[in-house]
Amino acid sequence: MSAGQPAGAPARLSLNQETIRQWSLPELADGCAAAGLRGVGLWRAPVQEYGVDAAARLFRDAGLTVTSLCRGGFFTAGDPGERAAALDDNRRAIDEAATLGTDTLVLVSGGLPDGSRDLHGARERIADALGVLAPYAAERAVRLAIEPLHPMYAADRCVVSTLAQSLDLAERFPADRVGVVVDTYHLWWDDTVAAQITRAGTSGRIAAFQLADWVTPLPEGVLLGRGQLGDGSVDLRWFRKRVDEAGYTGFVEVEIFNPGLWAREGAEVLAEIVERYERLVAR
Amino acid sequence: MSAGQPAGAPARLSLNQETIRQWSLPELADGCAAAGLRGVGLWRAPVQEYGVDAAARLFRDAGLTVTSLCRGGFFTAGDPGERAAALDDNRRAIDEAATLGTDTLVLVSGGLPDGSRDLHGARERIADALGVLAPYAAERAVRLAIEPLHPMYAADRCVVSTLAQSLDLAERFPADRVGVVVDTYHLWWDDTVAAQITRAGTSGRIAAFQLADWVTPLPEGVLLGRGQLGDGSVDLRWFRKRVDEAGYTGFVEVEIFNPGLWAREGAEVLAEIVERYERLVAR
Repeated sequence: MSAGQPAGAPARLSLNQETIRQWSLPELADGCAAAGLRGVGLWRAPVQEYGVDAAARLFRDAGLTVTSLCRGGFFTAGDPGERAAALDDNRRAIDEAATLGTDTLVLVSGGLPDGSRDLHGARERIADALGVLAPYAAERAVRLAIEPLHPMYAADRCVVSTLAQSLDLAERFPADRVGVVVDTYHLWWDDTVAAQITRAGTSGRIAAFQLADWVTPLPEGVLLGRGQLGDGSVDLRWFRKRVDEAGYTGFVEVEIFNPGLWAREGAEVLAEIVERYERLVAR
Repeated sequence: MSAGQPAGAPARLSLNQETIRQWSLPELADGCAAAGLRGVGLWRAPVQEYGVDAAARLFRDAGLTVTSLCRGGFFTAGDPGERAAALDDNRRAIDEAATLGTDTLVLVSGGLPDGSRDLHGARERIADALGVLAPYAAERAVRLAIEPLHPMYAADRCVVSTLAQSLDLAERFPADRVGVVVDTYHLWWDDTVAAQITRAGTSGRIAAFQLADWVTPLPEGVLLGRGQLGDGSVDLRWFRKRVDEAGYTGFVEVEIFNPGLWAREGAEVLAEIVERYERLVAR
């Protein structure tokens, strides 16, 4: 526990900013520091709006590690011009991650191009993009982190749907260049996930570990229905133990997209997250 | 082609009745026969309402094979009394399937019990139920068909989410007693599905092959958003070829839950399905 950290503050907990998106960046820095957190996960749009250099200073001065930057990716366009534009945008994302001092750029790889039904082709375009970007990222001490998204997003957001599939992709590259994200919301249903977490951990591929709970009914569009820790079906402690056993020692990032949380006072939401995390995850 | 069958009527196509739920059972029998179909998939509630014996006569007289009965299952309750009630209800479903002359009872295995996060326990209760029911079904020439449902249903409908998982369960029993359902809507995103279809086919486990397309955005509750053949992301022909290559020679059942189709004239919907099937699946 560092000097000035509130007693009992969770050392490994990181708050992904989308969880309390009602906070401005200064409010986020102040709120996390006040709650004794040491880590924060950021998104590109609010960081760009605030200024990347200024944001880097803000969180550094608050004693917060930027645990990840969301998000690069969207590599699957069929049109070569669109793919080139996506690579350029990902280079900018890597630069931003480097400026923020985070070693992890989370990738949402992209869904099927309009009118396409070629999952295999889309996945190969992701591998091609990783081959182009991984050296660029490595030169800037940033690792690309492939996030498998829940299969309900395969058409429109990400054709990488399982941890096994992410690892199949990542393992084409050195472990210090391309890793994977373990997010409970996306992976909780998979009966092979324990074995795949072990595979990811023993090869040093776990770049980020993110928490959200699964609650039903899902809302229209299925994007903003993630549950507060403990409100749903996911055995969060089970996941944390598997990830620990696999050798992961990094931050545990809470990333919940839920309008109910956004409508509340930020500090109250964060206090609830800390309490849930301590009770349901950390112990 | 049997006498009286319209030219070009698709020999393997079966219509699952929920696809045109606006039809009464007599309308369904007449409509399918008029379109030259040879198969129809039924649901328990409308069959019970009409009378099981009467329904059996109706479809037999119309020259239609009942290709499957939906649905048994819901085996995962934690309470022993609830589980016993589920087994009794499944025995009735098996009896109904036998009366209708179908050899396939589709199982939606059940989600997590309220408040539970124990996926493994729920899955083992499914195996226990199969062990009790498979002999009862076999005596009545009915095979239990485990349907893997899309992972977005794991919490509230079915903890069996992949074809591999269904086969792991089914293979605890003889192939003529427990099979699996291959449904494109549930499985299209899975990068291991080709290998698992081969595994299912070569062991004679494919009890039913069902078609629906994947369209986005998903509606609230994600139950009634299936797409008409060709309207979405699924390479339906690819699936049909894989299933054929795996040795499956049975019916191809179209099962779409979509309020847009339910609002239209039934015969028009069926004509569209036949045209789509011929153009996008059969050839």
